[in-house]
Amino acid sequence: MRFPANRPLRLDSGAKIENLEIAYKTWGELNTDKSNAVLICHALTLDQYATGSNPVTGKAGWWSKAVGEGKPIDPARHFIICANVVGGCMGSTGPASLNPKTGKPYGLTFPVLTIGDMVRAQAMLLDGLGVETLFTVIGGSMGGMQVLQWAADYPERLFSAICVAATAKHSAQNIALHEVGRQAIMADPDWRGGAYADAGVRPEKGLAVARMGAHITYVSEDALQRKFGRGLKRDGLSWSFDADFQVESYLRHQGVSFVERFDANAYLYITRAMDYFDLPGKHGGKLAEAFTGARDVRFCVLSFTSDWLYPTRESREIVRALNAAGCRASFLEIVSDKGHDAFLLDEPEMHAALTGFLKATAKERGLK
Amino acid sequence: MRFPANRPLRLDSGAKIENLEIAYKTWGELNTDKSNAVLICHALTLDQYATGSNPVTGKAGWWSKAVGEGKPIDPARHFIICANVVGGCMGSTGPASLNPKTGKPYGLTFPVLTIGDMVRAQAMLLDGLGVETLFTVIGGSMGGMQVLQWAADYPERLFSAICVAATAKHSAQNIALHEVGRQAIMADPDWRGGAYADAGVRPEKGLAVARMGAHITYVSEDALQRKFGRGLKRDGLSWSFDADFQVESYLRHQGVSFVERFDANAYLYITRAMDYFDLPGKHGGKLAEAFTGARDVRFCVLSFTSDWLYPTRESREIVRALNAAGCRASFLEIVSDKGHDAFLLDEPEMHAALTGFLKATAKERGLK
Repeated sequence: MRFPANRPLRLDSGAKIENLEIAYKTWGELNTDKSNAVLICHALTLDQYATGSNPVTGKAGWWSKAVGEGKPIDPARHFIICANVVGGCMGSTGPASLNPKTGKPYGLTFPVLTIGDMVRAQAMLLDGLGVETLFTVIGGSMGGMQVLQWAADYPERLFSAICVAATAKHSAQNIALHEVGRQAIMADPDWRGGAYADAGVRPEKGLAVARMGAHITYVSEDALQRKFGRGLKRDGLSWSFDADFQVESYLRHQGVSFVERFDANAYLYITRAMDYFDLPGKHGGKLAEAFTGARDVRFCVLSFTSDWLYPTRESREIVRALNAAGCRASFLEIVSDKGHDAFLLDEPEMHAALTGFLKATAKERGLK
Repeated sequence: MRFPANRPLRLDSGAKIENLEIAYKTWGELNTDKSNAVLICHALTLDQYATGSNPVTGKAGWWSKAVGEGKPIDPARHFIICANVVGGCMGSTGPASLNPKTGKPYGLTFPVLTIGDMVRAQAMLLDGLGVETLFTVIGGSMGGMQVLQWAADYPERLFSAICVAATAKHSAQNIALHEVGRQAIMADPDWRGGAYADAGVRPEKGLAVARMGAHITYVSEDALQRKFGRGLKRDGLSWSFDADFQVESYLRHQGVSFVERFDANAYLYITRAMDYFDLPGKHGGKLAEAFTGARDVRFCVLSFTSDWLYPTRESREIVRALNAAGCRASFLEIVSDKGHDAFLLDEPEMHAALTGFLKATAKERGLK
């Protein structure tokens, strides 16, 4: 579904986006108290298709393990909303959208965004849907950053908030890893300064390299070793630069399949928004200050032992700040060797934690 | 200096290189007993200029902290040899060399190499220099891999061996990281299937991206955070894709300065040799079997706490195998937050360990 905002989105940069459209999906029904709405915030390369079938890829939605009938987030109990972030490429206004002033795709004339801008757009969508408060806002990775931003900017609209495998600010290493991906895209001559759509080309090779590099950061060393080790594709080495090792083919496949579903400029804009994310920096260096309005919000923070992109210590910093601000926060570090992407995978301990937290919170909220 | 082998180098692939030349440097004098020779093996992107001034970069040699007058490896006591690896681009025969059969640069017609091939070429150089045995062979990172290969292939030529920040085999993650770099190079249209020299171009952008990604793996997250954090280049954000953060400029500089001194095809060949490196695999899966001939060699193995490329546990595996083979091995894990590249930096504990080990070993060898 598309939500036409009919009013401009003001951006942290000072710019604004006219004619904002937000592509979103919902599951379940809003109850008469309007007290059962759940907003799911997606990660860097994901979309509004959190569960059910993704019409673009033909695969199951990205969080089908956690969202759906009988799952922790359940359309039988919750009114579930998931929206493509502004700046994305799955229907919400982004750099691939047509600039109404020129009739051409924005490309690099699209304004640089922040996580705060994404959340402001989501708040406009909720206004449009008649959802005043959320039973919970939940997300992993960049989705978790949005959750924290929600708690900072709209605490009065939250009953609870669940932040999974995330961080309150991008580290130097996080920025460096993203910068390599952006440079890979911008090094591709088919990128054409971002105006590739006008030229009818796409910087597929550069985007694939960016994805390959990023993918390594989403999995743990142990998981790669367990899955592939030094396993060969064929019997013996090729003595060439073909993919000899299974991990090479796997990575090449990650690159090739990604470019089929993702826009290179959207990758630039969303990684930039993540790199700009610095919640403590926005509050005089004190993360706790970001949460002073959120004392009535019930928080749940989850991390994974083998996540080296946003390691557990960064979740602990969030929890410490929540505690310092007087917020109610549960925290669980989940033992998993699957790395950052564990939140998307079959992690029974995570699903049990979500179920437990949501059940207890539902009781407080008076939900069945 | 150049060493013309005057005989072909047989390669593990079955191919051979005719007209092999090895570019090397020496410091100090071989003593009358010929018992004081030290071979330094260099890492992926380094060269024969271990100390003194590097004529290509105009900077100090890459291991000036460990090699030189008053340093652990000292031309006053040692006859020091350092050779550019075969496949490299600093004077030894490599993919940028002219193929005598065609009169053109080899490019991708150059045969794929192994660490074993590099070591075999070094052994030929030592023959040419009249050096029968080495007082020690030493190297960090890929240099350490060569040290282990020396111990496996020519144990009778070693009195001692020092392996720093290395591994006995490349892991799935190591291979994956290299593959991203290779794909970045090969995605650059100026790579031209490896025949860029014929066309008078160079895949500079692809090589720079490869270097940027690799550089992140050479430093620790803590070191990046300490050095740069979220520090900005200018006052305020640019709201663009310019380098806003210091870590972005730093990384871009790493890429740009690297392409000035390195050849893209050499990068492909040397990373491939590292990925093919699997010393236990070559010995029925039992690393100890690689060292059965090395019982008389004194080993020193060093690792760094914050090295996530070749973490300490991989050095421990080497030590366990040396012990299982009945070799004498000292092992030290050095506390450092500088990551993999710590071996190149000012690490007093490493230099003290090298000095101590070399002094004790010199005594046994009857050196002053």
